[in-house]
Amino acid sequence: MIKRVLTVGLITLGSSFLLVSSAQDGPTPEQQAQQAMETRQSVFRLFRYNLGTISGMARGTVEFDAAIAERNARRIAAMAPMIPELFQAMDTREFDLDTEALPVIWEQFDLFQERAQALVDGANEFADIAAGGDRMETLGAIRAFGANCGNCHETFRVDD
Amino acid sequence: MIKRVLTVGLITLGSSFLLVSSAQDGPTPEQQAQQAMETRQSVFRLFRYNLGTISGMARGTVEFDAAIAERNARRIAAMAPMIPELFQAMDTREFDLDTEALPVIWEQFDLFQERAQALVDGANEFADIAAGGDRMETLGAIRAFGANCGNCHETFRVDD
Repeated sequence: MIKRVLTVGLITLGSSFLLVSSAQDGPTPEQQAQQAMETRQSVFRLFRYNLGTISGMARGTVEFDAAIAERNARRIAAMAPMIPELFQAMDTREFDLDTEALPVIWEQFDLFQERAQALVDGANEFADIAAGGDRMETLGAIRAFGANCGNCHETFRVDD
Repeated sequence: MIKRVLTVGLITLGSSFLLVSSAQDGPTPEQQAQQAMETRQSVFRLFRYNLGTISGMARGTVEFDAAIAERNARRIAAMAPMIPELFQAMDTREFDLDTEALPVIWEQFDLFQERAQALVDGANEFADIAAGGDRMETLGAIRAFGANCGNCHETFRVDD
């Protein structure tokens, strides 16, 4: 009798657990991976937006403005640490995603973090130069700043 | 004869122009609008990511860390000015987009800018409190910080 009560009890507990689990269903692992990828891509999209204005100044398609160049570089410095954070938060290697992120990111994560920190430092160094307000010095510093993009992409991004 | 040469010349010029124009075709207005929307949404996605960690500390699902709370709030303060910038860069009212942005954004742009500035100020005020390192003071300041989201959404975002 005691055994039967226990058995029924465990079955009931088991069913309740399934119900609770089903009612609280959050996103599936596939949906989580998709969301993780979209958040990562948001950072890169905002890098492009902010860097696009600066490189436009170099090409002459955007009017030179040292304050805007500095501001955009500081934004990139503020956002760049999100890159290793987001890739560390979820390893999406096993999911079928429309991503350019290579598996080597998670295999060489220390190097990946170093490259992200180099972008932070490079963005701040550029911002310090732009803060001086000199057009030629600022434009001349863009190449070194932008090199941080390629330095990371060559190892960690699909080569397209 | 002169007329014929001119005509042929103009036709050739016209064709070359079409060819050049076709070869240099950038994104269509529809594609530009889509890209503008995606860049805007990237900012909101990164707000959610950074604010999610802070509100998780309030709910007890994320371990309290004053330094992370401050850092994330500073990031939001750094990113928030992109909101009016991006909505000003392209008025997408006439395009068929999957967006929650209401037309009133462009109709009351001064107010929209004020609300974005209120978010910058609110994020920095919260960050200053978090910098003090006190758990209860920091958690107690979250509501006032987060209110800036709703203050803007109630006017400018689709009510879902």
